[in-house]
Amino acid sequence: MEEGRGKSRTVVSIYGQQYTIVGTENPEHVKRVAKFVDKKMREVKGNNPYLDTNKIAVLTAVNIGNDYLALLKKLENEKKDEDL
Amino acid sequence: MEEGRGKSRTVVSIYGQQYTIVGTENPEHVKRVAKFVDKKMREVKGNNPYLDTNKIAVLTAVNIGNDYLALLKKLENEKKDEDL
Repeated sequence: MEEGRGKSRTVVSIYGQQYTIVGTENPEHVKRVAKFVDKKMREVKGNNPYLDTNKIAVLTAVNIGNDYLALLKKLENEKKDEDL
Repeated sequence: MEEGRGKSRTVVSIYGQQYTIVGTENPEHVKRVAKFVDKKMREVKGNNPYLDTNKIAVLTAVNIGNDYLALLKKLENEKKDEDL
């Protein structure tokens, strides 16, 4: 998260809070990811209306992390199948 | 996140806070995901020492969401290649 050559700054809104994302990814992509996280946070909130924002954010990271690791495993298994 | 048939309750520690994760996933898997998120949160904190825990958690979700969407795209492209 620092200003640098070839880096773009993108302001996004996630769960009612603004964030400036600095990175090499293009702004459209950053906005897509932010929208995805915002949607996931609202889903978690819907299932756990009593949780505070901090816990909503952590549980959202857990949910996305779960999906990410599952996808990674699927990709590795497909590679293994190809090697057989 | 509710108690039910075939559901397990797993207590995990993420970024110094305890969470009870209820779901159909096995506890070992839940602990692996929690460890992954904890590590990612500490990486984000290392890069942004001035951010509060809430923002650390949201930015962690953004980072993992970015990795997830990139992997999803890779998987879709591989499928497209197979169809050619």
